[in-house]
Amino acid sequence: MTFQVYDTTLRDGAQREGLSYSVVDKLAVAQLLDEFGVGFIEGGWPGAVPKDTEFFRRARKELDLRHAVFAAFGATRRAGVAVDADPQVRGLLDAETPVVTLVAKADLRHVERALRTTPAENLAMIRDTVAHLVRHDRRVFVDGEHFFDGYRHDPAYGATVVETALAAGAERFVLCDTNGGMLPSQVTAVIADLTARTGVAPELLGMHAQNDTACAVANTIAAVEAGVRHVQGTANGYGERPGNADIFAVVGNLQLKLGLPVLPAGCLEQMVRVSHAIAEIANIVPDTHQAYAGAAAFAHKAGLHASAIKVDPLLYNHVDPSVVGNDMRILVTEMAGRASVELKSRELGLDLAGHPEALSKVTGRVKELEADGWSFEAADASFELLVRSELPGGAAPRPFALESYRVQVEHREDGAVVSEATVKIRVRGERVIATAEGNGPINALDEALRVGLSRHYPELLSFELADYKVRILEGSHGTGAVTRVLVETVDGAGNDWTTVGVHPNVVEASWHALVDALTYGLARTRV
Amino acid sequence: MTFQVYDTTLRDGAQREGLSYSVVDKLAVAQLLDEFGVGFIEGGWPGAVPKDTEFFRRARKELDLRHAVFAAFGATRRAGVAVDADPQVRGLLDAETPVVTLVAKADLRHVERALRTTPAENLAMIRDTVAHLVRHDRRVFVDGEHFFDGYRHDPAYGATVVETALAAGAERFVLCDTNGGMLPSQVTAVIADLTARTGVAPELLGMHAQNDTACAVANTIAAVEAGVRHVQGTANGYGERPGNADIFAVVGNLQLKLGLPVLPAGCLEQMVRVSHAIAEIANIVPDTHQAYAGAAAFAHKAGLHASAIKVDPLLYNHVDPSVVGNDMRILVTEMAGRASVELKSRELGLDLAGHPEALSKVTGRVKELEADGWSFEAADASFELLVRSELPGGAAPRPFALESYRVQVEHREDGAVVSEATVKIRVRGERVIATAEGNGPINALDEALRVGLSRHYPELLSFELADYKVRILEGSHGTGAVTRVLVETVDGAGNDWTTVGVHPNVVEASWHALVDALTYGLARTRV
Repeated sequence: MTFQVYDTTLRDGAQREGLSYSVVDKLAVAQLLDEFGVGFIEGGWPGAVPKDTEFFRRARKELDLRHAVFAAFGATRRAGVAVDADPQVRGLLDAETPVVTLVAKADLRHVERALRTTPAENLAMIRDTVAHLVRHDRRVFVDGEHFFDGYRHDPAYGATVVETALAAGAERFVLCDTNGGMLPSQVTAVIADLTARTGVAPELLGMHAQNDTACAVANTIAAVEAGVRHVQGTANGYGERPGNADIFAVVGNLQLKLGLPVLPAGCLEQMVRVSHAIAEIANIVPDTHQAYAGAAAFAHKAGLHASAIKVDPLLYNHVDPSVVGNDMRILVTEMAGRASVELKSRELGLDLAGHPEALSKVTGRVKELEADGWSFEAADASFELLVRSELPGGAAPRPFALESYRVQVEHREDGAVVSEATVKIRVRGERVIATAEGNGPINALDEALRVGLSRHYPELLSFELADYKVRILEGSHGTGAVTRVLVETVDGAGNDWTTVGVHPNVVEASWHALVDALTYGLARTRV
Repeated sequence: MTFQVYDTTLRDGAQREGLSYSVVDKLAVAQLLDEFGVGFIEGGWPGAVPKDTEFFRRARKELDLRHAVFAAFGATRRAGVAVDADPQVRGLLDAETPVVTLVAKADLRHVERALRTTPAENLAMIRDTVAHLVRHDRRVFVDGEHFFDGYRHDPAYGATVVETALAAGAERFVLCDTNGGMLPSQVTAVIADLTARTGVAPELLGMHAQNDTACAVANTIAAVEAGVRHVQGTANGYGERPGNADIFAVVGNLQLKLGLPVLPAGCLEQMVRVSHAIAEIANIVPDTHQAYAGAAAFAHKAGLHASAIKVDPLLYNHVDPSVVGNDMRILVTEMAGRASVELKSRELGLDLAGHPEALSKVTGRVKELEADGWSFEAADASFELLVRSELPGGAAPRPFALESYRVQVEHREDGAVVSEATVKIRVRGERVIATAEGNGPINALDEALRVGLSRHYPELLSFELADYKVRILEGSHGTGAVTRVLVETVDGAGNDWTTVGVHPNVVEASWHALVDALTYGLARTRV
């Protein structure tokens, strides 16, 4: 039986605190999930959520998926209502998806206390709705809500729910740990008991895990080890409370640890790109420490390790990072010392091995700056400028000298908010004064600097500030509070680089990062 | 045999990217870990890391722990050196801790390729060092580095390492999944094979898991289910790459799922407080989605759930949040609607149930504002002001009216960076103009506003801006980029409240949040 990788980023994943997708966002996420090679994309609840109805309508016309088919999510018919008279069920058919996934109550307590109907009527609702959708040529999956809690409370009723759904024509019955309280050994025990009690083959079951015990991925793997061949998850583990099983870690483990080829060839190495792109669309800072996909998932910090890694990288990584599209990174930090600085420089194409004095100076300077709150871990371009400045003949030319700047934000009497900046600089012997407005103080300063430099450096017109991050480093431990700014810049040729600035004043911190960004970009285009 | 909860936040946890503790930070973290009730606190590597030597010296004098004892971490003696001539080993004794934890190579490939010595000399290094420390009255734990990878490569050598360490007098041998590549079933299989092969009781073993397969917590639980009675972890799962096993989730699962009372009475409910305080000290934004300890760990968003939760909260939470010091929260979001807004208002002590029209207005206003990038999930005070403004007679009095403000940042020719703000406001019929300096533009604006208001509202002198967070919401999806600012304010009486502001201009966004903060604080003190 084909293994089914079923993604619910767009439905259950959207329950995450702070997350909200537009229809355009959902279309872009669906495209990315297809590129990752999942077999099923649950797009939402058509009929119940207007945005989701619209999504399915546009997806049919605008998306041409290579690997995935769409599933519409919805509920069984209402109690006491004929299935063909239930508008919610009609909404599911109207979405015109090959698959419909129905949520069904599988815990007797929820049937009685939340649904407020009888155990028998709940079974009839499942039977009627599955059969109705099958008659309309849909493949039907049934999500058994609160299945594990329910089964541990009353296994007979849980087993009957599974048998009823499958007998009515459901292709798979998905065991949901809705409250997320299970451990892997409990998942194993419930599946063994259920299959023994009912004779249902585990291949007809699916697994949907939530992460409330920090075991969602492990619970999903445990279900597969028990014979289940349908797994549900969300990109980056997004979801309500601690989230859902992270589909990237689930798939990484299935392919690389259990040797199950659950994705089409060529898809696994899209993981990092797809993970980060979805985070971008969701407007959630990517978790750098995410298993497999995180920027730090293969990043080595300890000086001890950094020296040993030179000997044999695979002794220090659980898998080759490139198989999931990730890189091994060496971090520049106070704990690492010379070995890390040297390796990191080599990554950037700079040979410090032959310059032990420069290596010492760079290591010392990095330690000093990090003590003041600087961080080069995410700012390769600033780090490269620092290394170059210590290499004989390597310093990047500073494109200008600052005399002064002034930034002003006014909230005027008429309610208008206006930002304006003036820079006074020396460029190639010429004194330049330039003023510009912006939508905020940093943007105004950036604009004024570009205006001032543009006559001498027309190439910087192709640079664009792509991202701007601010972090307040708290000053409760002796040092005053400082602000750290990271600036990501792109040019027209597909290059991007990140620079850092630190100062108690956010404007001055931003200034440092902006100047590094322009210096680095200009040095690069002139090489 | 007593169950051992062993924390390595201060040593292995400090390998996390971007993390750096001062000695004062480490003392504060140790105090908190003791309050959480762990039995062992690994403080660092004395002798090798000067900061750690200093830590142990000060900890002996300054800390009076109730539950925990300190462990010094270090390595076995160097190859070819007598143990009593090895300065690194002497450094471990000099730390004067009751426990020393030795890292030993347990993977033959690492012995040969990284340590570059013979299998026999590695065993001698373990034997000599353990015996030497035991002679000096230390309890010795041995961390078998890369144990699982090594055992799967060459089980005979791994087994010999375990037997050697225990025979030399080690109290526990800790199985380390250093590269983090294991799944729970593999952990179970290795422990079963090891105990069968050697006859070593599983109670003499410990477990140290890394999270590279997103299974660190599950792997730790699997080891305990296999009989292991010593678990290692770090606060919030901090550690290299994807991190270590999160000690909070491990302990939560052991106590609440397996029924093992591994902490002293009264300690489990310190979890959330300790978790967040350590994040604060580490200067890492707490993970709101962390299992058990996260602010969103028990937060319900879906409108569906929010209505059902009114019926029976325990049907929707895997454990009672209060047992780990957490709360159930209802989130205010577009997906929730009226039920969530009503429940949330009730949490704040405001009755909207009797005012259906106000409830509709608040729900509509929240939806509008959230579409513009506002978020009330973390800003209860701003939400409360919004609700009050729709309740008959409930609006908080606005303490002033704004005419205009102006903020200026100058980088002067002498290098000085100066921030200055002027506000023009009307307070109780009087026109007030006030100017102040600050260490940045927002601080200057805050100061100027306080100066302008202080004569009429002297109580705001006790308010203090405790935290300031900035988030750039990217504008790549149709809307322009906006900045969201969260301001946390405290008063002298131990109260704190959080307000939000959103605007394309960071200064104006901050202004909204600052004004809400003062309005809320003044309304509160006048009730």
